[in-house]
Amino acid sequence: MKWKRSERLVDMTCHLLENPHKLIPLTFFSERYQAAKSSISEDLTIVKETFEEKNTGKLITVSGAAGGVKFIPKVAENEVRDVMKSLMAELGHSDRLLPGGYLFMTDLLGDPRLMDRVGKVFASAFAEIEIDAIMTVATKGIPIAHAIARHLNVPVVVVRRDSKVTEGPTVSINYVSGSTRRIQTMVLSKRSMKNGQKVLITDDFMRAGGTMIGMKNLLEEFNCELAGVAVLVESDYPHGVLVEDYLSLIKLQAVNEKDRTIELAEGNYFQKGGTET
Amino acid sequence: MKWKRSERLVDMTCHLLENPHKLIPLTFFSERYQAAKSSISEDLTIVKETFEEKNTGKLITVSGAAGGVKFIPKVAENEVRDVMKSLMAELGHSDRLLPGGYLFMTDLLGDPRLMDRVGKVFASAFAEIEIDAIMTVATKGIPIAHAIARHLNVPVVVVRRDSKVTEGPTVSINYVSGSTRRIQTMVLSKRSMKNGQKVLITDDFMRAGGTMIGMKNLLEEFNCELAGVAVLVESDYPHGVLVEDYLSLIKLQAVNEKDRTIELAEGNYFQKGGTET
Repeated sequence: MKWKRSERLVDMTCHLLENPHKLIPLTFFSERYQAAKSSISEDLTIVKETFEEKNTGKLITVSGAAGGVKFIPKVAENEVRDVMKSLMAELGHSDRLLPGGYLFMTDLLGDPRLMDRVGKVFASAFAEIEIDAIMTVATKGIPIAHAIARHLNVPVVVVRRDSKVTEGPTVSINYVSGSTRRIQTMVLSKRSMKNGQKVLITDDFMRAGGTMIGMKNLLEEFNCELAGVAVLVESDYPHGVLVEDYLSLIKLQAVNEKDRTIELAEGNYFQKGGTET
Repeated sequence: MKWKRSERLVDMTCHLLENPHKLIPLTFFSERYQAAKSSISEDLTIVKETFEEKNTGKLITVSGAAGGVKFIPKVAENEVRDVMKSLMAELGHSDRLLPGGYLFMTDLLGDPRLMDRVGKVFASAFAEIEIDAIMTVATKGIPIAHAIARHLNVPVVVVRRDSKVTEGPTVSINYVSGSTRRIQTMVLSKRSMKNGQKVLITDDFMRAGGTMIGMKNLLEEFNCELAGVAVLVESDYPHGVLVEDYLSLIKLQAVNEKDRTIELAEGNYFQKGGTET
């Protein structure tokens, strides 16, 4: 069956969106649609221009025998601001305030569309950096890690607090929680990572950054390298954050438990060059 | 700026894929592209036919003033078999065998593309059932729950083993683990679910089904209703499974720890009517 251009464009778009950061040879499409490579090239130009116009992402063409096309999810500044605005509107409700100055965020972390947008925003910021895996700590960071991972086409590695039989042999480290100064344990399955991988670490919330330091230490045990840090909400920490370089979407500036007020601001995403402007 | 049909098709496809199970009024598209509704209708026919041809899903048109178009992710039988085959090929490696007859699956649960496919396969099976939320138990079920949720456009609710300050007030129940007969605890944030919701429960692995029964009991505490059960891998349990109705992709039939062999089969997905054939 021969495909019309209009049909090819629809199906090609599906295929590219489902396979970000993956080089797809032109022959894949020309065989799939029984079409000449020149027609496929023209199709891809239309897809590329539409993706750019609507800030869906970039379509990169690699020429040569091992060439093809690669879809790189990218967001524009207005999408990042939109995600920040939605998050701030949600997080600002006083009934989210929990004892100890924490915010209830579980419902937001359970919203798949929001997580998808957050994931794309972070994937966009790290699109040009070499990343082999996304690491997070159970439980709350998992949806964010998976959302980023899907847009970057890399696996997720989940650090746990306890060792379980289903993880097989594990490596465990102790670290000091940044704000409470308690000794805590982190456990990672030995099979989860290979030597020499470049790893982006992420979490839903960061106060002093102790958990991030814990994950960083764990990376060293696996001879892996830190490629970046992505945080959904950072909390202002008067004694200074333990990690130097991180990207955040939202900053929790102050909470007043007596008046039940929450002060939020944009995170450092734009200062840290999360998007080209 | 006026959009050409080819550009509209690409962008429309992106928008539909990003918003499954969501009614989008035709006016949304006609305003977005500055095009007549009749042109948009013609575009949608092309999208619909291509989606059906390539088994991307269904495009349902709702007529009338409150009408519009809705994308329902649906997979065909061959995609389900393909996912089953990939899972069996991966899970069959003898080095996945862990003490107690468990299989190491953590790496597969960390593969975002595989999880996306698994999520679509389950979302496809439950596409015609009313579902308000997906429930799972931390940690391993979370990627599957989120993948299903994204394709069904409903939130994820995560049950925990322990209570944490960041969850706010919680409801806790005790249940008996099906295979080890130990008393275990499950905790769910009170804000996680509203009364009367229809909930699909999911997990990565099911032996006797104790965890599923625990989640079912928790649903009752919230006056919620069980809408279905989706399991990635079920293990053959000689004493009978505690849950009556569930959908599984893979069945772990036998493991031989001495010979280090793993016997796998297709789950009950097709018998339970996971796809129309």
